[in-house]
Parts: sequence; structure tokens; C-alpha cells
Amino acid sequence: MRIVQKFGGTSVGSLERIRKTADIVQAELAHGNQVAVVVSAMSGETNRLTAMAREVSEQPAARELDALIATGEQVSAALLAMELQQRGVSAYSYSGGQAGFITDGSHERARIKNIEGNHLLAHMQSGEVPVVTGFQGVDERGNVTTLGRGGSDTSAVALAISVHANVCEIYTDVDGIYTTDPRIVPTACKIKRISYEEMLEFASLGAKVLQTRSVELAMRYDMPLHLRSSFEPVTGTMVVQEDETMERATISGVAYNRDEAKITIMGIPDQPGIAANVFGPVAEAGINVDVIVQNVSEQGYTDITFTVPCGDYQSTMNIMRSLCKQMDARDVKGDDSIAKVSVVGVGMRSHAGVAKEMFDVLANAGVNIQMITTSEIKITVVIEEKYIELAVRALHSAFGLDEEGS
Amino acid sequence: MRIVQKFGGTSVGSLERIRKTADIVQAELAHGNQVAVVVSAMSGETNRLTAMAREVSEQPAARELDALIATGEQVSAALLAMELQQRGVSAYSYSGGQAGFITDGSHERARIKNIEGNHLLAHMQSGEVPVVTGFQGVDERGNVTTLGRGGSDTSAVALAISVHANVCEIYTDVDGIYTTDPRIVPTACKIKRISYEEMLEFASLGAKVLQTRSVELAMRYDMPLHLRSSFEPVTGTMVVQEDETMERATISGVAYNRDEAKITIMGIPDQPGIAANVFGPVAEAGINVDVIVQNVSEQGYTDITFTVPCGDYQSTMNIMRSLCKQMDARDVKGDDSIAKVSVVGVGMRSHAGVAKEMFDVLANAGVNIQMITTSEIKITVVIEEKYIELAVRALHSAFGLDEEGS
Repeated sequence: MRIVQKFGGTSVGSLERIRKTADIVQAELAHGNQVAVVVSAMSGETNRLTAMAREVSEQPAARELDALIATGEQVSAALLAMELQQRGVSAYSYSGGQAGFITDGSHERARIKNIEGNHLLAHMQSGEVPVVTGFQGVDERGNVTTLGRGGSDTSAVALAISVHANVCEIYTDVDGIYTTDPRIVPTACKIKRISYEEMLEFASLGAKVLQTRSVELAMRYDMPLHLRSSFEPVTGTMVVQEDETMERATISGVAYNRDEAKITIMGIPDQPGIAANVFGPVAEAGINVDVIVQNVSEQGYTDITFTVPCGDYQSTMNIMRSLCKQMDARDVKGDDSIAKVSVVGVGMRSHAGVAKEMFDVLANAGVNIQMITTSEIKITVVIEEKYIELAVRALHSAFGLDEEGS
Repeated sequence: MRIVQKFGGTSVGSLERIRKTADIVQAELAHGNQVAVVVSAMSGETNRLTAMAREVSEQPAARELDALIATGEQVSAALLAMELQQRGVSAYSYSGGQAGFITDGSHERARIKNIEGNHLLAHMQSGEVPVVTGFQGVDERGNVTTLGRGGSDTSAVALAISVHANVCEIYTDVDGIYTTDPRIVPTACKIKRISYEEMLEFASLGAKVLQTRSVELAMRYDMPLHLRSSFEPVTGTMVVQEDETMERATISGVAYNRDEAKITIMGIPDQPGIAANVFGPVAEAGINVDVIVQNVSEQGYTDITFTVPCGDYQSTMNIMRSLCKQMDARDVKGDDSIAKVSVVGVGMRSHAGVAKEMFDVLANAGVNIQMITTSEIKITVVIEEKYIELAVRALHSAFGLDEEGS
């Protein structure tokens, strides 16, 4: 087997953790596998470097910020390579540029265009362990670039594709994806296999284990991902292409998010372009709008309701209040005691009536639905926050997730 | 004028110091000069990184140690470039590899072979300020290398040569080279101009402002160096090719070193190879021998006396005691209360009798000379430590240095 292993900031966060991480690498080598490693910066290091930059300048030059921050992964890669060498493993660290990660020139949010050369593959085949810095590359002129938050996952997947690995293992501090939050539903199960599409929905719902881009990339090249714990040597969750096994389960899991607030702008004179008028200023303020529902227009007026993270609630309300006047709308209302519940599953495609069943379950539990939005494999409802545990438990049980993982 | 400015660790040691350093760069630009900057790591950073490596491994892999430590200069270069950009200066940081510093593959003590490409010159000519990491480069396979202690001086000189600069300015926390230590001789003067050869002698005598290799490189390519203070905007010491002006002064300065101990191994049966027998084990122990004097052999026996740094005195004595038995020598004696005084000057070449004058001055001051060693432009004597201030003052005065710098 050829394996790319990605270790996050906590897995290289101290010299003790670096030793544990080296244990994991060595264990795979002992099984006769070829291994390459991708590492994040030691936890806290990126923030330390960013803080220095902010002290120099409120808006530090993006090219220099990337050059600065990229040193974080270079430090952890060198330390892990040292630790492996000291155990007799032939290990060498590579910066993004040395590993041949060529990106576009968009500093702080670069996209990988290509991984140049097959030298890392040759190293792996000769028994060496390349330890590659995640999160970074160089553009075509050799400037250091970074891939944006969570970019190390994307680095790992890209490397795995480039060296034709059998699997890309993502080590974090959780041991996989669960059917729902075990703190709310003690019978929640670890999901053994999940499709890329479902993983994408879970990732967008706030499951922080994997960056969306890395899942998209893995899906495009059909690279299996294994999400697992660097603390416990147990099998985690495999993220793979949808297959027949999966078709049997209607839904894979129930996700929720309390960190949402709802805003409604009411009685807007209905005319083309009003959605752009409403969301333009919100986007400019860097606020991430999630669920959006526009009611059917009555008598030339319409209502738009949307959700934002709680932290952006007040500033969004302020934007909406001034927009309300400009647009001659009737009123703005807000509510920050709401929550979002979603059911996700590729099985939805072939099983009619999942939405109806979800609404029935919630109605029987006495939970009122405020907003609904759907995708091909996901149904999301917004409800009063106080009902969240009740709703999650009822859905988890009704969709047969209490017994075992899909 | 085209100028390369090198700033050491204290000049970029804090964000406040980085701002002062940016002031200096901006001042040169305001004079219409083209400027490139070479920076060391923030003071303390290299030690912090090295300490982490030593915690991982007593003998960290040299390649990884270089990759780790090279991040220190990358951080300070990025921060200084940010600071300059924030003032509207078009400044960009370059790692050793990005700047085209190609070295041999000797990790931790690499030598610069070549600076590839003229892109930094083109940047300077278009008004940009390259901020280049000192102390580092890449070998021909792209591995990060470091140049060894003080290597940033060498980086700066090499860059100055490569871009055909008019001068290479070395900013430190002292404002130049003095005729002797002003703490001993209050009338000591700053030396305005000094030859490369003299600077080499001063550097080897422990003047810590410049690394020997950087002076050799500057001498070979006739690159003028300007040693100056980053704290005070005054002219420092110019290190240039020997010229007629210099011929007038007999000696340029008086240097001393208290940190020496003397060891004599007596009555060694005189035969070819004894020096190698004596100094082989000392070199293997990594001890730096300085002055060596071998007395004329009498009746088939000879004495060898040499000096070592005080910190290596006891271990060297132990080595010598066991050697004494092996070589059938008569005895070993040591003395750690000695000091070394040197007079340095290119004028010595054309002025006969400098040695005689030096010995006369010391004799008149009642200072007994224990060892003598000479080079073309330097005479060094070893004396009892307690006479050191007396000797330095007498020589400084006798050679006419009290009035003004040469």
C-alpha cells in the first residue's frame, strides 16, 4: 500500500506529540507500506506569526504574510523528519516549493494547479518518507503562497493523487464522523463509510474535520480518505465513492448548528434585483449567509428570511435596518435563538418521502419548523433553539441510526 | 549609488527595532540610492529553534536542522518587507533559494558557489527593495543550507558583489572598529578606513563585528564594507583595499584577548611528526589552538607551548597529561592567567623595527613577554594577564594612536 498521512496542528503541537506522530508513521512502515507525510504548523504557531504581522501592519502585504506564515509548517516538518531520522527512518522534510506544489498567485487563498515532478514518488518507492509542509506552495514565479484555512487537508489529498496513493489518511483529534453528536444522542455511531457528497454536506454543516475543498478534490480523483484519530489507533471513517452498500441507508446522519441567527426583511417592493440589493452589502461586510428563503410575493411585496452566524447577528441587523429604509421595505425582524437541523444521505435520492417523514417526526415531537431548505442529499430545517436536542434525538431514532452506523 | 545593507539580529530583534531599521532603509532611498537588504534572524530566534531540535535529538539531522533554522531569517525578512510596504516602499522578501544563493551541500557550514540570475539587480533598478534572508541558500538539488555562524555577513557581501553594489553596509550595535578598547584607553579613536588585511587580523583577534569569511570575500572582489551602527546615524569604519593613505600609519590598532590559557609540554623526544601527535587529539576534541611556539630542540628534546580558550583549558590539560606519558615527555605545565596583545597594521610592511619598538615599549613598562608570534601585518605577544591594561595603554600611546584614528 502507498499511503499519504496528514497530521494537523495538535498532532505536531509539542515535541511529545511529534514523537507519538512518528510512532504512527513507523507503524505503517512496519506493515511494509510506503508512506509520505503532510503536516500542519504546530498548534498556535500560525496565530503567533499572524499576530506579529498584525503588529507591523493592520493590512500586511499578502505576499509577505504568506512567506511569514509558511515558516510554521517548515518548522514542524523539519522537527518530525528529525524525529524519524533519529529512529533510523530515512525521512526528509520538503517545503511546498521543494515538494513541487505549484499554485496560482492568489496569496492567502491559493489553489494548487499542479504538483511538479515525480521525485516524491521515487523517494517513497525507495523506502524514504517525505515529510511535506501542508498549506503552502509556490506560484510559477517562485513566490511562496498559502492555501487558506484548512489548506493542509487539500495539500495531503493533492499529494496522494500525485503519488497514486491507495488512501489519504487524515489524522485529527476525533476518530471519525458520527451519525450525530454523541453528547446529545449517546447511541450515536461512528459512520464507517460515507460518500464524498455526504461528506461535503457534513463539512458545510460545520463538521470541522475536513476542509470542503479537500473533499471536492478527493471526489474528483476518487481518492479514498480515512478520517482517524492520532490519539487512538482505531479505524475511523472512510470517505469513498458512493457504492451499492450505501444505497441501503436512507440517511447517514443528523447534523445541527446552534450558532445561527435568523433575520427577516419584510414587505420589500418586489422587483428584479432585490436579492442582490439585500445580500450585496452583507457579502461586502464579509458575512457568510447560510439558509435563504424568499416567500412568494403577494400584492407586489415579498419577504426575505436568511440566517447568519450569531457573531454577525448585530452587524447584519444594522445593515438591514438601513437597507429597509433605502428599499422602502416595511420592517426588519431578527431572532438569535434559533438552530438548524439537517439530515444528510445519498439514500434520499432513491427513497421518496424522506422530507415528509422528517416533517412528520418533528411535528409529532411538537417542534415547529420556521424555514426549510433542501439539496439533493440534504434537508435542513430551522427551528427554535430550545428544541434542538429533542429534534436531533427524534430524527436520529426515526431514521434508524440508533442501532449501528451505516 | 547602489547599496546592500545588512542588519543583524538586534536590528530586527523586535517590532520596534524593525521600524527603526525601515527608517534607515527609507533614508537611503530618499537619497536616490538603490537598496537591497540582507537580514539575520530576530535575536534569540536561532537559539530557540536550535533548542527545539536538540530536544528532539542530540544530533539532529543536519539537513533538517538547516531547514528548521532557515525559517528564522524568513520570518524577519517578511516582517521587514511588510513594514517597508506599509510605508509605501515597494519591498519584497526573498529566501536564500528565491534570491538564487546556490551553495555547496555542506549543511550547517555551506559555502556560496554562485548567485543565480540577475533578477534582484533588475528589481533594484526598478526601484524595488529586495529583503533577502541572510545565512542561507540552497544546494544544487534545492535542499536548504545554512552558512554557519555569522553567515549573514557573507550573504550580504556576496549579494553586493552580485548586484555590483558600490558599498556593502554592515549594521550592528557598534559604530565601527576602534584603535583599541575604549574601556581601557579612553582616547581610543574610531578607525575611519582600514584595509581588508587589517580587518582580517582584527576579526581573527576576536573583533566580533565581522565574520572572517565575509572579509575575505569582500577583499577578493574589492567590495568596500562600511561597518556602522543601527542605533546612531554616524559614519562608521570603511574596510577597503589598501591604499597610499594607509601607508602613513604604522599600525592601525591594538587588540587584546584575556580569554586565553597557555599550556607547555616539555621534554618531548624530538622526532618528525611530534606536532601532529600533540595537536591531533586537541583538534579531534574540537578545541581551537591559537598561538603555537616550538622551542629549538636541545639535545634531542623539544618544548611546545600553545594557547587555547580558557573554557577549554582543563580538558586540554587532561589530554596533554595522558599524551605526556604516551610520548615519554618530561612534564606538562599550564597557566590560565595570561593574555594576548597584538598590534596590527599594514604600515608594518614598510616600517622596519615595529617589533623592536613593541618589545621596547613593553620592557619599559615592566611587562615580561612569554610568547611571540608574528604575521606580515601583526605582532602578537602573550603576557601575564594582570599587565594587560598597562600594555594596551603603553602600546596605544607609543604608536601614536591617542591623537586620532588612522
